[in-house]
Amino acid sequence: MSATTGSTTTKQTTIEADPEVPTITMTREFDAPPERVFQAWVDPELFVQWIGPRSIDTRIEHWDARTGGSWSYTAEREDLHETFFGSFHEVRSPERLVQTFTWGGEPDSVSLETLRFEPLEGGRTRIVGVSVVESMELRDLILSSGMEVGVNEGYEKLDELLARG
Amino acid sequence: MSATTGSTTTKQTTIEADPEVPTITMTREFDAPPERVFQAWVDPELFVQWIGPRSIDTRIEHWDARTGGSWSYTAEREDLHETFFGSFHEVRSPERLVQTFTWGGEPDSVSLETLRFEPLEGGRTRIVGVSVVESMELRDLILSSGMEVGVNEGYEKLDELLARG
Repeated sequence: MSATTGSTTTKQTTIEADPEVPTITMTREFDAPPERVFQAWVDPELFVQWIGPRSIDTRIEHWDARTGGSWSYTAEREDLHETFFGSFHEVRSPERLVQTFTWGGEPDSVSLETLRFEPLEGGRTRIVGVSVVESMELRDLILSSGMEVGVNEGYEKLDELLARG
Repeated sequence: MSATTGSTTTKQTTIEADPEVPTITMTREFDAPPERVFQAWVDPELFVQWIGPRSIDTRIEHWDARTGGSWSYTAEREDLHETFFGSFHEVRSPERLVQTFTWGGEPDSVSLETLRFEPLEGGRTRIVGVSVVESMELRDLILSSGMEVGVNEGYEKLDELLARG
């Protein structure tokens, strides 16, 4: 699961399913400091430019990126119109972001997502995201949904956004 | 872990740790319909009357019980002053409530809590609450914290509140 863009070095996104608990852990490095990568997650004008696969457009419906706030957006292409919603449990800039996440089509399946932004040498950042759900079945269903396409293409777009400065 | 009060029949609260996943499941029945039990969870004036052990007073700091809202409260007695906070991920009255939960003293330990309100014969309700965290270690730490005292005494107080009508 590696991604190459024209403007940056090849970057590897690691997506791991824990064998013991129903979590998915994603790890990725970016060529920008934590403050800028964090900002791309919480500023809705930046977020819509990179989230998800290249084939969809994201439209923010609601966005209040503070501890105790919430969000919702729609992912759209010709044949698709999907809503997603959740809460910002904690926004601790620039190191930690804890959110809930639900696809509107399956509202009883909720993920709790914790994202850590770790500073690296040279003004770079490693993000480590852990999603947990209630059961192994749901975790495996999420993994088999093709999520890695959206993750990899999204992170490529985020590389491009960060390179534009 | 049973609880008896003067005014109601003996009720059993079941607190189960799943052997496979880091969840805690709590089950309890109440002598009131789902609408009234749900209301006792989302109305802050009712909530403070029953949440937690008998030895503490609960003071609401913030309360916005709607999908995408959030909450925080303080638990107080002479030697104690603890804050708790979280989000209302979904408020689906009167059947389902999904929240995040954090003790302020350990802000990196977050639970995702789903509460179902199941109607029973005779205008009664069974609640089934599932809390999930990222690791077995954190789940076992929560279980060993003496949480069952607050849960059992709280549910006794809720019985009394519901009996007062």
